[in-house]
Amino acid sequence: MKKAKKRVTIVGGSGYTGLELLRLLLLHPEVEVNRVTSRQYAGKPVHRIFPSLGKTDLIFEAPNLKEIVKDSDVVFTAVPHQKAMELIPGIINQSKCKVIDLSADFRFRAVKTYESWYKVSHEAPQLLEKAVYGLPELHLKAIQQAQIIGNPGCYPTSIILGIAPLLKAKLIKTDGIIADSKSGVSGAGRTLNVGSLFCETGEGFRAYKVGGGHRHIPEMEQELSLIAGKSIKLTFTPHLVPMSRGILSTIYAKPVKKLSFRDLEALYREFYQEAPFVRLCEEGEWPSTLQVRGSNFCQIGWSLDSRTGQLIVLSVIDNLIKGASGQAIQNMNLLFAWGQTLGLTQLPLYP
Amino acid sequence: MKKAKKRVTIVGGSGYTGLELLRLLLLHPEVEVNRVTSRQYAGKPVHRIFPSLGKTDLIFEAPNLKEIVKDSDVVFTAVPHQKAMELIPGIINQSKCKVIDLSADFRFRAVKTYESWYKVSHEAPQLLEKAVYGLPELHLKAIQQAQIIGNPGCYPTSIILGIAPLLKAKLIKTDGIIADSKSGVSGAGRTLNVGSLFCETGEGFRAYKVGGGHRHIPEMEQELSLIAGKSIKLTFTPHLVPMSRGILSTIYAKPVKKLSFRDLEALYREFYQEAPFVRLCEEGEWPSTLQVRGSNFCQIGWSLDSRTGQLIVLSVIDNLIKGASGQAIQNMNLLFAWGQTLGLTQLPLYP
Amino acid sequence: MKKAKKRVTIVGGSGYTGLELLRLLLLHPEVEVNRVTSRQYAGKPVHRIFPSLGKTDLIFEAPNLKEIVKDSDVVFTAVPHQKAMELIPGIINQSKCKVIDLSADFRFRAVKTYESWYKVSHEAPQLLEKAVYGLPELHLKAIQQAQIIGNPGCYPTSIILGIAPLLKAKLIKTDGIIADSKSGVSGAGRTLNVGSLFCETGEGFRAYKVGGGHRHIPEMEQELSLIAGKSIKLTFTPHLVPMSRGILSTIYAKPVKKLSFRDLEALYREFYQEAPFVRLCEEGEWPSTLQVRGSNFCQIGWSLDSRTGQLIVLSVIDNLIKGASGQAIQNMNLLFAWGQTLGLTQLPLYP
Amino acid sequence: MKKAKKRVTIVGGSGYTGLELLRLLLLHPEVEVNRVTSRQYAGKPVHRIFPSLGKTDLIFEAPNLKEIVKDSDVVFTAVPHQKAMELIPGIINQSKCKVIDLSADFRFRAVKTYESWYKVSHEAPQLLEKAVYGLPELHLKAIQQAQIIGNPGCYPTSIILGIAPLLKAKLIKTDGIIADSKSGVSGAGRTLNVGSLFCETGEGFRAYKVGGGHRHIPEMEQELSLIAGKSIKLTFTPHLVPMSRGILSTIYAKPVKKLSFRDLEALYREFYQEAPFVRLCEEGEWPSTLQVRGSNFCQIGWSLDSRTGQLIVLSVIDNLIKGASGQAIQNMNLLFAWGQTLGLTQLPLYP
Repeated sequence: MKKAKKRVTIVGGSGYTGLELLRLLLLHPEVEVNRVTSRQYAGKPVHRIFPSLGKTDLIFEAPNLKEIVKDSDVVFTAVPHQKAMELIPGIINQSKCKVIDLSADFRFRAVKTYESWYKVSHEAPQLLEKAVYGLPELHLKAIQQAQIIGNPGCYPTSIILGIAPLLKAKLIKTDGIIADSKSGVSGAGRTLNVGSLFCETGEGFRAYKVGGGHRHIPEMEQELSLIAGKSIKLTFTPHLVPMSRGILSTIYAKPVKKLSFRDLEALYREFYQEAPFVRLCEEGEWPSTLQVRGSNFCQIGWSLDSRTGQLIVLSVIDNLIKGASGQAIQNMNLLFAWGQTLGLTQLPLYP
Repeated sequence: MKKAKKRVTIVGGSGYTGLELLRLLLLHPEVEVNRVTSRQYAGKPVHRIFPSLGKTDLIFEAPNLKEIVKDSDVVFTAVPHQKAMELIPGIINQSKCKVIDLSADFRFRAVKTYESWYKVSHEAPQLLEKAVYGLPELHLKAIQQAQIIGNPGCYPTSIILGIAPLLKAKLIKTDGIIADSKSGVSGAGRTLNVGSLFCETGEGFRAYKVGGGHRHIPEMEQELSLIAGKSIKLTFTPHLVPMSRGILSTIYAKPVKKLSFRDLEALYREFYQEAPFVRLCEEGEWPSTLQVRGSNFCQIGWSLDSRTGQLIVLSVIDNLIKGASGQAIQNMNLLFAWGQTLGLTQLPLYP
Repeated sequence: MKKAKKRVTIVGGSGYTGLELLRLLLLHPEVEVNRVTSRQYAGKPVHRIFPSLGKTDLIFEAPNLKEIVKDSDVVFTAVPHQKAMELIPGIINQSKCKVIDLSADFRFRAVKTYESWYKVSHEAPQLLEKAVYGLPELHLKAIQQAQIIGNPGCYPTSIILGIAPLLKAKLIKTDGIIADSKSGVSGAGRTLNVGSLFCETGEGFRAYKVGGGHRHIPEMEQELSLIAGKSIKLTFTPHLVPMSRGILSTIYAKPVKKLSFRDLEALYREFYQEAPFVRLCEEGEWPSTLQVRGSNFCQIGWSLDSRTGQLIVLSVIDNLIKGASGQAIQNMNLLFAWGQTLGLTQLPLYP
Repeated sequence: MKKAKKRVTIVGGSGYTGLELLRLLLLHPEVEVNRVTSRQYAGKPVHRIFPSLGKTDLIFEAPNLKEIVKDSDVVFTAVPHQKAMELIPGIINQSKCKVIDLSADFRFRAVKTYESWYKVSHEAPQLLEKAVYGLPELHLKAIQQAQIIGNPGCYPTSIILGIAPLLKAKLIKTDGIIADSKSGVSGAGRTLNVGSLFCETGEGFRAYKVGGGHRHIPEMEQELSLIAGKSIKLTFTPHLVPMSRGILSTIYAKPVKKLSFRDLEALYREFYQEAPFVRLCEEGEWPSTLQVRGSNFCQIGWSLDSRTGQLIVLSVIDNLIKGASGQAIQNMNLLFAWGQTLGLTQLPLYP
């Protein structure tokens, strides 16, 4: 007898991460997408809003917790922060359903951190303990046993993967780390605002939230501090690139001792030996976002500036895949003990 | 016992169609890429030139016919026209190896047509008879039995699929058809020329080879004439869009009688009922290249201008996939009697 | 004694045409921008909303007719259609102030045409007679004496300039003309809608309002009919190009007799001998939008397809300049009997 | 009697900086472009290669020193490094002609620095003493009296202008400065190489010459050391943005004492009080390359990260204007004691 497929619900399926979940899950061999919710498009066939998916039987529906818990094995919540924590307790408390939350609501170990950066009270602090930060390259085992996964932000994914091995091995100073990140415009979502218009972002380049104002900072600091075994404060500057997808983070750190390219290659290779989605650059090469576009890969390169003693690490991901929906599926694969790469083997679309 | 995979060679693997063949074939469940040739990069690992593919054991090699025929079940030739016809007889005459040629050399039934447009003598005219024009939506059965397939050009694919049903049903006048096509820059290949530089194509839009000078014209006319049962001459204007992938063709034709959207919908639906890669737009919608990017789909929409009597058909493809490498693999699937869609089920990357 | 500068008000200055008027008028030697209105930004310094302009003393203000008529010699109305006709009578009836309207409200000779395409009653039909269609290459003298100018739409400017000489000389058939136009995204303005987001337009290409639905059609037909001396119906298909600025129109027409490139060159050269902003392409060349970006030029090229008998004309403009604000200033120059090119001599920004 | 215009020769006029010099000089009120040389295009009318300029009488000619010195008051050399130092002594030694060199050959005070970074012997070391580094915001008076001007590189212009005030005022530590710069593709010139193709740079983002390999480093270090009064070593990472024009540099430095936004505003305001092309951002705003595109402006913003103590300065220019040809003209204006802004008043093209 053929084993039944796992039943999936996507809550908040009308943004770019929702679309990307659909794109990947519709072809995933072990799941069936049962429901996709969207208040805005409730009643409309999914293919009318997202014709790129082709015709499916799916129709956007208004979210109905009762229905969802009844027939879902796993729920992806792709709603704004705050909305997620209002919703998820209702799922978790009534069922064994797994939840993979793409918002920020379940990424933090300390309620206080969340509340001071997001300026709201957390409505389900008791669930934070049960939640696992869903970066499989760091928390593989915990993820396998979790019921709630706080799926990482896009910038944090690129930056944490970029320097985790260095911090773990205590090879860099923990203060003075700078992450200068550049993101494609899809990071701003499908929401309407002037700054996301083609004419405001096309053919130009700019920074935003300079000087410590971006909400991805506490998430990076939590994880990097954990790896380093001591508190880390990070300088982070996000920028907007006139392209749809991709993040490149250029990370500056000071080595605590003399290092060679090969030393670092050995370190990264070992750290990521069981991480199927991490790729390392060869000497004298650095990653381009094009080399990972449309895939779940994270590609990492580095350089040592012998003149200034700086170590520069470059890390690229597709922000919608490894930075969001692909990683969420990688987490789902771990939850159900499938191979990590199931349904995620696509090679990057280049050019 | 597990059936052996088919062995593939790609001749001329260092351009964008070569790269795209590799991207798709490396994940195709029934084939193994044995060899990739490139004079320019002979001796270099494939992943050094195309890091997006990730590490493979493949190394570019200089083309060696003897070796190729010995251990290939199918050869994709992704070399410039002229080069293909020099090479292919050596393969065909010595082996049962199938050849799928992505150049123009085996697309024509009449040697004269080829020679007058390409300004060279054909070196293997006897093989033209054996070759089949590899547009599966039109020539499914012939393709299944062919040894040589002339894989269609990108513009012709979009235009022929766009109006074949109309010509077949004799619903439009055969003279005065105009195809106004717009292509992404990858259509110009990876060859160095000023016109393909970012600064010459980015942020701008232009036409080229206006007035009947593009070599894809005879190919379209051959196929459209065949369907229509009479000689067709086409006005064709290609344009360059500041994007990497995608072709949109806007085709103007005069209906011979009054038609409604529904008439046409029924016609197209029937014509393409067994064509898994053709998608039709709903009324009031028209296709975007983004809706097929990264996929083997062709999406078609249309409109009747009641004021002027013109019928306008819009057809989009990803020029590197349905317009080249994806279609070549679709043809391979037919040659080996696999499902047409094997290894080609990817949904479009949007955005 | 130095002659006083003319006093300018811009009504509706917070969109892209408003910004472009400001950019050009702030450096125009004969005018001073007195007022810029915007309900949305009333009270805010102009440079806070448009930092590219640098610091000026201008502050957005709510529109106040009384004030405007008191201290303006010319008013540019850059508001949506309907808004313009509500406003302009109040200016015209109380003052000698000239009005250059960038909306569609004063482009039509026949009220009925306007009303049937724009689905509203015209509120100032009596003023339509006084208004002149502000395409200087066709209506130079009338513009010089007008009080209200209906500044042409962007698509019509490119298309009318492209084929006016042919229609005037009766060299093409008046039926079956097709204009296939491609526009940068700024044509959609600074208004928020999903279709104008970077992720929905970047890296893709699509058509819209296919089949006779675009409101620029009646405007083109009015002007082309006038030149031709008989009623013309046009097939028009607009498309969206992933770039900010520029329109290229590819126009298909049937010559009534055999023509050569040189015949047409002589014709266009004569027709535009006193049109300082029209440039003609050399034989074998066709225009790119990049060749006019940031300038008030219109560049025109053509080709005769000897195989099909079609004449193909290509015409490019910068939609925000010759297609809107630059043309408005050209009209102002005519109104005040300055040289047509005053303040408009910028050469295109390439690349 | 009308004063004669100054006669200009452009040597090496077929690249993007040559084109940009032409675009600006053709409209400059005090000069006449006499000659434009190009070996590649010798004999061809300039407007055939650069149609955006419109018809001029200029014809590319092979460089002929004798002719040039006879009838030029100023020569712009826009040739690759090495070529410039072969040519310039022949001009300087035979005439009073001023030379503004856009290559790197006359930017350095120390021959050794040049030779160690550019890996060639300097052929005219004696002229280095006479040359002035042409950054008017720093060396106004020296430029006014120079005969040879070494026009700064694009990255150095953005970075030096960004932090000169801080170093002058000794407000930041001189070690550990990091400049993370992002440039449009025109920085790579009009030269053919795979990395400059649309498909290799469009829709992607990447770093290059990471780790201290870029030749603009010694130039920045020379100037920054001079201002600081002590030797400075800089970490510099250049990146490529999918846009044609613009550089944004994000510069990280450690303040030596507590500073506020207002402190810095006062400092920058004073430092640049006579610099007509430097614009400062308001608090909470940061510059976009779009805000300077097509203009000679440099716009600077900054932020203090109170969490990490880092000062982040952002500086944008149009790399072809303030980063090359516009700055060269600004230098020419100083040489001839015209107003600095003559012919350079264009406001940025936005969007």
